[in-house]
Amino acid sequence: MKVGFIGLGAMGRGMAGALLKAGHTVSGFDLNPAALAWLEDNGGARAAGPAQACDGADAAVLMVVNAQQAEAVLFGDDGAVEGLPGGALVLSSVTMPAEAAQSLGARISEAGLNYLDAPVSGGTVGADGGTLTFMAAGNDAAWNAAQPLLTAMGQNIYRFGDHPGPGSTMKMVHQLAAGCNLAVAAEVMSFGAHLGLDPAKVLEVLNVSAGGSWMIANRGPRMLTEGRDASSAVDIFVKDLGIVLDAARASRFPVPVSAAALQVFLGASGAGFGKHDDSQATRFYERLGAKKVRSDQ
Amino acid sequence: MKVGFIGLGAMGRGMAGALLKAGHTVSGFDLNPAALAWLEDNGGARAAGPAQACDGADAAVLMVVNAQQAEAVLFGDDGAVEGLPGGALVLSSVTMPAEAAQSLGARISEAGLNYLDAPVSGGTVGADGGTLTFMAAGNDAAWNAAQPLLTAMGQNIYRFGDHPGPGSTMKMVHQLAAGCNLAVAAEVMSFGAHLGLDPAKVLEVLNVSAGGSWMIANRGPRMLTEGRDASSAVDIFVKDLGIVLDAARASRFPVPVSAAALQVFLGASGAGFGKHDDSQATRFYERLGAKKVRSDQ
Repeated sequence: MKVGFIGLGAMGRGMAGALLKAGHTVSGFDLNPAALAWLEDNGGARAAGPAQACDGADAAVLMVVNAQQAEAVLFGDDGAVEGLPGGALVLSSVTMPAEAAQSLGARISEAGLNYLDAPVSGGTVGADGGTLTFMAAGNDAAWNAAQPLLTAMGQNIYRFGDHPGPGSTMKMVHQLAAGCNLAVAAEVMSFGAHLGLDPAKVLEVLNVSAGGSWMIANRGPRMLTEGRDASSAVDIFVKDLGIVLDAARASRFPVPVSAAALQVFLGASGAGFGKHDDSQATRFYERLGAKKVRSDQ
Repeated sequence: MKVGFIGLGAMGRGMAGALLKAGHTVSGFDLNPAALAWLEDNGGARAAGPAQACDGADAAVLMVVNAQQAEAVLFGDDGAVEGLPGGALVLSSVTMPAEAAQSLGARISEAGLNYLDAPVSGGTVGADGGTLTFMAAGNDAAWNAAQPLLTAMGQNIYRFGDHPGPGSTMKMVHQLAAGCNLAVAAEVMSFGAHLGLDPAKVLEVLNVSAGGSWMIANRGPRMLTEGRDASSAVDIFVKDLGIVLDAARASRFPVPVSAAALQVFLGASGAGFGKHDDSQATRFYERLGAKKVRSDQ
């Protein structure tokens, strides 16, 4: 397929690369010139803006930061909608509230295009390997047209409904679990260290027992170090758990564990670690007097 | 080895069975006559009390409910200490505060015996299969003497120090992670259901993504049902997270996520589900108006 790819950050590059590997034609746009150079070096074409990237394309794939950026690259000056031919697909993997996905979907539909609400999980490793998990929602036309792209970029592909919204709801709910489990990992590692247990050994036990989680296995080892190379930053969970708390408040649904987990990320961010790797949620406890989990200083 | 086994509940039976399978001689005691009949049927000998069970034994293994029961079966009338010969091992897999393990260890040592503080994780499946995780602490004499028993009952065997206490600390810290991850699982499944997502599909996504955990994989499926057969009850986490909160308060250490998780179990217990399977932590959210996660009524 001929694809216009908008948003070539760490995730977007991996996804565009997976599309290229699968034989799709990719024309891309990003504000960062280095991202465009990367695309050219990897067999894609650079475009001057979203409209040019999507000119005559079968599909636009969006991997920008939030709903506001998605709206701008679709409907702003030189937006993707100007370039896409009638009936083309807009596949958005942008993390956004369900209401935003519904609203964008309605506008895309009015423009004579098909919208698939399709956020992802799997991080840069999943993006680079084409093994992302997709949480998709949209009508049959969008779902069917997206199959060659979804299978190129993803390994586990789920559909949550025939209209935009539930894909983004699932992504939000996923972030609730991921963020809370990470806060639990930071709390257990910090409390264990504080009580005099060897953090590396605590981690080893948790990984073979009922206290284990994807987050403990993946971020636990990084808690033992400075976490200077951020794979995903503390502030991402400040944002994503903030979206969870807003949605919960709007629907009068109590989420006490998420509310507490957000405090951990807020505290770590407020203490100056917002741009650090999210494993450094441990700094919340460290700043409050806990013995250090990390051993490299 | 000749072993006196005290406490033949669901966990104790599995562990005693693993010792018998490995060729050890087991004489056991429990207040429940059915447990003693089970032991006889499986190749062990029933005893009239702790002292008789441990008469001339190389080791006593304790798997009673808490520190108070452990103290009673060791030092009470007809206690195990009366039956054990000098230099014998006392291996306690009882979940208790670290201070209780230290205090029991000191009294056992004064009685001329060796104490291994060795709580476990792995549930009845791990007990039945001889694949428990042991978090042990004690002097070399206790640690070395216990090896044939630990390897018969366990798969992952860790030592946290040369004196009683840190094994129990590790178990408490483990319960923090397990209890919090279970509360997270209840919160994410309930919020997803409330927002209109299919709970079975939410579970499927979480199990292949960064939001996954041992608890989501193991208890998630039971959340989809009534959870009438309790493998471990809601009130166990009321107790274990209570121990975590007490220890955290005593050491002036904030554990906001654990504090919130305890409210979920307290709420479910207060609503009448304390003896139900711990997957029914979802009832906290259901009683507050959430759409049901379970589908069988």
